[in-house]
Amino acid sequence: MITIDQVRQRAEMDARTNGCYLNPDKDFLNDLFVGLKTNEERYGYPSCPCRLATGKFELDRDINCPCDYRDPDVKEFGACYCALYVSRDVSEGKTQIKPVPERRPKEIQARAYGLKLEAPTPQATASSPTTAPMPAQETKIRLKLYYCKQCGYVCFRESPPYICPICKAKMEMFTELPIQPENAG
Amino acid sequence: MITIDQVRQRAEMDARTNGCYLNPDKDFLNDLFVGLKTNEERYGYPSCPCRLATGKFELDRDINCPCDYRDPDVKEFGACYCALYVSRDVSEGKTQIKPVPERRPKEIQARAYGLKLEAPTPQATASSPTTAPMPAQETKIRLKLYYCKQCGYVCFRESPPYICPICKAKMEMFTELPIQPENAG
Amino acid sequence: MITIDQVRQRAEMDARTNGCYLNPDKDFLNDLFVGLKTNEERYGYPSCPCRLATGKFELDRDINCPCDYRDPDVKEFGACYCALYVSRDVSEGKTQIKPVPERRPKEIQARAYGLKLEAPTPQATASSPTTAPMPAQETKIRLKLYYCKQCGYVCFRESPPYICPICKAKMEMFTELPIQPENAG
Repeated sequence: MITIDQVRQRAEMDARTNGCYLNPDKDFLNDLFVGLKTNEERYGYPSCPCRLATGKFELDRDINCPCDYRDPDVKEFGACYCALYVSRDVSEGKTQIKPVPERRPKEIQARAYGLKLEAPTPQATASSPTTAPMPAQETKIRLKLYYCKQCGYVCFRESPPYICPICKAKMEMFTELPIQPENAG
Repeated sequence: MITIDQVRQRAEMDARTNGCYLNPDKDFLNDLFVGLKTNEERYGYPSCPCRLATGKFELDRDINCPCDYRDPDVKEFGACYCALYVSRDVSEGKTQIKPVPERRPKEIQARAYGLKLEAPTPQATASSPTTAPMPAQETKIRLKLYYCKQCGYVCFRESPPYICPICKAKMEMFTELPIQPENAG
Repeated sequence: MITIDQVRQRAEMDARTNGCYLNPDKDFLNDLFVGLKTNEERYGYPSCPCRLATGKFELDRDINCPCDYRDPDVKEFGACYCALYVSRDVSEGKTQIKPVPERRPKEIQARAYGLKLEAPTPQATASSPTTAPMPAQETKIRLKLYYCKQCGYVCFRESPPYICPICKAKMEMFTELPIQPENAG
């Protein structure tokens, strides 16, 4: 059993830790907290209140709040996809939130929802293997060790974070750690 | 030689980094800083000013300030065990601190102070091996690599943190990294 | 193409995440942001606007903003070398910034700029091998896995950070992780 107050406390700690702010509209914010509480009780983890979760953690991991897209969206648009987290300027009413497009890659969405991706070129469409049902092994998620070349932060993920949570370096600063875990994934 | 001002600077950086706040009562706070300074000069590390340290870092590690219990206590009770760190609501005077029970596990306390744990059942008490002196090898601390399944944060500890310092996921989101360090511990 | 606003957003997130503050002088701050933007466009990474970069990331890594010296300098002197990041007291005008000496080790500077270090003793000067050109293999940078004995934070760097970004423990709390990556560096 989780309370709205616990959801709020967590979001406040999280915003402060990661350098962003909560939406200043208290009613709007509360509605999102209710959504997070509902999802946590339903799935066992607080998936994004503005996106459709599958109920399988591995497929929903990137849209668990705070989602993988929160930091680059706050940096670029002033808010995350839900507008739960905002930038300092938005928090202080200095700027408006820009429309936030869905940053979640189509491939990740397709994998989560078991959809086929549209083929990228007309030729490929004609006889593309992507029009065949997606084989089960393609949904296997392989985790790797990455590190930030700027500050040395180490993480174990499918792909590097968009922004380093420690030094805020961009994704391109991450590279694979030259060490291989056993049975990763 | 460490100054009260250095202790305070460190606590301020730490609170901001980890999403919590310092106790708004300046005199109370200063007394705690004096305690931290005393402990750092006595032991070489700033162990909790409200708990008894052993002077052996391995046995005191979890009660080194910020202690392992700070984040879950601030989240659940509005303050850490000492009330040095508090939640935003407490910091702003909106709510009172609730009584904070000792979260440090009895097993960890027993290990630190070389105590016997009381047997869990009456039968066990009769001929329990727990009444025998604790063998030396039981105090061996084995460290493992863990990662947060939500954000990928990697750490090397005896057990996972209560709350992920990066994404604030709960302890249950941590699992062992499938890789084994040599001679861990 | 990077904008001044993006540079500022990044610095604001970074300051909040790492427990420090931006210089309260807006014009001064803006000049530093212009410098960071210039360096990012010139080198591909935002090297310190107050130091000379080489253009080779490996040699400039430690002076990439936020530089390796930011946290200990803010803690000890109230500001980083550039005074872009300051302490809370300086941010609130309670104290003045002290002169910040260059913390970057002379050996690191010598390696970056291809300089010879002066010999430490007169005798050594006479026939010192340090007066010979620095052999190429000495500039090889070897990265290692370190962890913080206090909180377990793991990083992959040439040397440990001055202050743990998670728990703010001092550098001495870091030690090598007993595991060896392949082909590190």
